Amino acid sequence: MKQIEVKKDILAAHDMIAQENRAFFRERDIFVLNLMSSPGAGKTTLLERTLELLKGTMSLGVIEGDIATTYDAERISKHGVPVVQINTGGACHLDGNMIRRALDEFNLEKLDALIIENVGNLVCPAEFNLGEDMKAMLLSVTEGEDKPLKYPLMFRLARALVINKVDLLPYVQCRIENIVRDARSLNPDLEIFELSCTRMTGLAAWTEWLAAAIRNKRRKTIST
Amino acid sequence: MKQIEVKKDILAAHDMIAQENRAFFRERDIFVLNLMSSPGAGKTTLLERTLELLKGTMSLGVIEGDIATTYDAERISKHGVPVVQINTGGACHLDGNMIRRALDEFNLEKLDALIIENVGNLVCPAEFNLGEDMKAMLLSVTEGEDKPLKYPLMFRLARALVINKVDLLPYVQCRIENIVRDARSLNPDLEIFELSCTRMTGLAAWTEWLAAAIRNKRRKTIST
Repeated sequence: MKQIEVKKDILAAHDMIAQENRAFFRERDIFVLNLMSSPGAGKTTLLERTLELLKGTMSLGVIEGDIATTYDAERISKHGVPVVQINTGGACHLDGNMIRRALDEFNLEKLDALIIENVGNLVCPAEFNLGEDMKAMLLSVTEGEDKPLKYPLMFRLARALVINKVDLLPYVQCRIENIVRDARSLNPDLEIFELSCTRMTGLAAWTEWLAAAIRNKRRKTIST
Repeated sequence: MKQIEVKKDILAAHDMIAQENRAFFRERDIFVLNLMSSPGAGKTTLLERTLELLKGTMSLGVIEGDIATTYDAERISKHGVPVVQINTGGACHLDGNMIRRALDEFNLEKLDALIIENVGNLVCPAEFNLGEDMKAMLLSVTEGEDKPLKYPLMFRLARALVINKVDLLPYVQCRIENIVRDARSLNPDLEIFELSCTRMTGLAAWTEWLAAAIRNKRRKTIST
């Protein structure tokens, strides 16, 4: 099975670059979040709400990953936060090399945290470490309750799951308790947040948790 | 850029297998549809509705592609149609080899058409030809109107676009006219259907169009 060998080699090479990125971020005391989901689950909107709630309390930067267009970076830049758009030109995920090249565009001395919005894809982004401190993922209730077991890798690797668009629950067949049950069967320690970015419900719990994770890393880094 | 060369070689090898599949289907006079979308856009539900409307008039078979679980094949088998589940074990798309191996499970002499439901992924499945006569794709209105330009390849290669879950339009920010405009800018000949599988609206136009495509291939095959 030659193809699989090639893939393994590529993944190993990518992991080395991810380790270099991780050391780079540690030296500069920057917390890095890798945010992943299917297309249209609401990553950019969640990011906009999160920036509005956190940007007064800490210095944040954003990397937007998309196959094409700069739509998402334009949305983020309206919030007064430094943002770099990576266009993968067809690639279905971000990788550590792309992140490394994007870092030159930031004033890193000033940054407390960097949030990376990955390409919309519930599969491939989970396979590529970027050097992040934490992976988080979104699932929209419109995608259906069967998704954790059908797409298990991302649910296994994520530290947090944001169940988004709960305002649409009355109109779709989706039981959140089944998402929670199946996601926890794959990942018992998963933090789970239920929210609606359009109705602005549930956002405080998510942003407070994220802010605590950012501050926690910075305190650890200072104390060592 | 060694990695890209590797990928090109892999894609070329896959295209050869797809060509062999295509010849195989042509000999046996079987129409093959490759159905693609993001996770949770409604492929399996559309397939269930389509089978109910067409199964009395022609002989259909289904291949279900998923990373894990047999949920989708179980749903399809309730409709009395032969179905084979492919579990890719992590791979983010189906390829021609997987299809070829699945074919042994069907009584091919009896089949008019084979519908392949690909892995839920708006990116990678578009890169791999399976030997199909036609690619069709779904987009749910909950995914947002910006998706054609952000994920252009699948929209370019699809013969038909099914815009699903239009019953949710009152509750989401999505203008169908913008999806249609951007999808047609990428692919002027794209056939576009707007429907709701839960409300059962718009299904007749889609199934009649698909049935005509199936009959058209079989007539052509007979006349040559």
